Amino acid sequence: MRAITYQGKLAFDSNHPDPIAAEGECLVRVRMAGVCATDQQILKGYLGFRGVLGHEMVGTVVAGSRAWEGKRVACEINCVCRSCDMCQSGLSNHCRKRTVMGIVGRDGCFADYVAVPERNLHTLPDTISDEEAIFVEPLAAAYQVLSQVPIDARTSVVVLGSGRLGLLVAQVVLATGCKPAVIGRNREKLLVCEKRGIQAFHVDEFVPRHDRDVVVECTGSTEGLGTALRMVRPRGTIVLKSTCSEPTKVDLSPLVVDEVRLVGSRCGPFSEAISALARHAVDVRCMISRVVSIEQGVEAFAIATRPEVLGVLFKINSR
Amino acid sequence: MRAITYQGKLAFDSNHPDPIAAEGECLVRVRMAGVCATDQQILKGYLGFRGVLGHEMVGTVVAGSRAWEGKRVACEINCVCRSCDMCQSGLSNHCRKRTVMGIVGRDGCFADYVAVPERNLHTLPDTISDEEAIFVEPLAAAYQVLSQVPIDARTSVVVLGSGRLGLLVAQVVLATGCKPAVIGRNREKLLVCEKRGIQAFHVDEFVPRHDRDVVVECTGSTEGLGTALRMVRPRGTIVLKSTCSEPTKVDLSPLVVDEVRLVGSRCGPFSEAISALARHAVDVRCMISRVVSIEQGVEAFAIATRPEVLGVLFKINSR
Repeated sequence: MRAITYQGKLAFDSNHPDPIAAEGECLVRVRMAGVCATDQQILKGYLGFRGVLGHEMVGTVVAGSRAWEGKRVACEINCVCRSCDMCQSGLSNHCRKRTVMGIVGRDGCFADYVAVPERNLHTLPDTISDEEAIFVEPLAAAYQVLSQVPIDARTSVVVLGSGRLGLLVAQVVLATGCKPAVIGRNREKLLVCEKRGIQAFHVDEFVPRHDRDVVVECTGSTEGLGTALRMVRPRGTIVLKSTCSEPTKVDLSPLVVDEVRLVGSRCGPFSEAISALARHAVDVRCMISRVVSIEQGVEAFAIATRPEVLGVLFKINSR
Repeated sequence: MRAITYQGKLAFDSNHPDPIAAEGECLVRVRMAGVCATDQQILKGYLGFRGVLGHEMVGTVVAGSRAWEGKRVACEINCVCRSCDMCQSGLSNHCRKRTVMGIVGRDGCFADYVAVPERNLHTLPDTISDEEAIFVEPLAAAYQVLSQVPIDARTSVVVLGSGRLGLLVAQVVLATGCKPAVIGRNREKLLVCEKRGIQAFHVDEFVPRHDRDVVVECTGSTEGLGTALRMVRPRGTIVLKSTCSEPTKVDLSPLVVDEVRLVGSRCGPFSEAISALARHAVDVRCMISRVVSIEQGVEAFAIATRPEVLGVLFKINSR
């Protein structure tokens, strides 16, 4: 099959071995897939991953379960053991033995086929297009913020970073009745926010005043936390979404003195993301910058790093 | 008066000007005072403080309020405006315009006299000796952990750092019914823990397993957070107590991936600390390594940095 792999070097492989679905797994033919900032971090050495990249996808189940065959699905990325202390305590996304599609110990979805545990599958209603379905995984990660930090109309929220995740978080926060401000570096991306009724400021034009209840850090950069600490109020909360391959150098004494809470945030609830996309509560079409073929894989990664680019999708199979 | 000052250099001054109590302030004659890790950080440049050092004290009110004159007192260190947004919202320890005794914009207590806002005073019952009363401020900071993070008998807690604050936190946590483990570097200090029925491990002999619900970081070092991240479980909490003059270099991706909460923690409730000392619920006598005169100020700071030393107190006035 065709696949985009990382073995210390990013490559397109036209003749990669097909995946084999293990017990309890289904084989999914990938229709479309999306490039994420985590993929870019993997190329810089994050988690030492080797294999087929990719974890944002929509596909059709082709084998492994009669009940699922022919269904169009989104797939949760954490593949879990169901028996460790984390799984037993209801925190299976933190399974001690987990593999993670295209990130930890398991091939990803930038390929014609991917093997996925049956329990990770979610059917998609027809009101969600393939292009939109790519955003189920990152949108779920955006909803995770709301599951960790109470946010309502009276909460003053800053979203740091005007990339794809920042825009998703801003829309999810906006839907609570709160008026978030997005702080970014790229004028085109900030314009995308403004068109959606979200306040947007260039980072050089926003004066941090230690006055925001919640700052959601989505910059993808090690500098984001320092900036967030200048914006959050005493006893406020910073949600950290960025995973970086590099260590962060930061003065944490303001966190101690101001008794700030810093909350790490990763994967979120697929069901909420699917429901939001189905009722068009979140606009993701504005985040599709380019759709390319899987053969253009290496080029697609280069495009995705451009400052003005929000989302790059692979169209892999038509059904 | 006599005073220990920092003007870019630590010095004993035998002829320092007496403080003048402003409106709403009392003049307090200092009986005893204690050297804290924050004082040591100030000598390294923390917060750029200049003036009389010291913020842990017991003294006698000598002027400023008839109701208070003659009373033996402990003094809260945050001097607040009562009108800013923080004060108005009940977070006066985070007052935007605050001065902090011996730390920010206000002379401290390593002196014969110190001026303190009347509302910062707490009377001390006779069951608390002067030596013990020095620990009201750091013990309050230890109780702050309980006010920020729920801890009970079922919570698995590690206290990182076997210094004075670590030992205070461990005792406060122990009193909840929980069995904390203290991790430190100095054998003598670990022995002090064990004598109080607290599990103690040398950092080189403790294998971090990402399995603790709560890690309270009291190392006073920028390396503490990295160690804490290896000990805390997914979705667990790290309480950060150390303020360092240097930036921290740390890989924060485990915080994001494991969705850890990092909570900054500073000053705490004096009333709880006084109550605990009055009923001898916490032993602080084990933490008095040396009592010296104020004339020995520079030497006392050198003693306080020795690895085996827990607490150095100044005896300044006998009444």
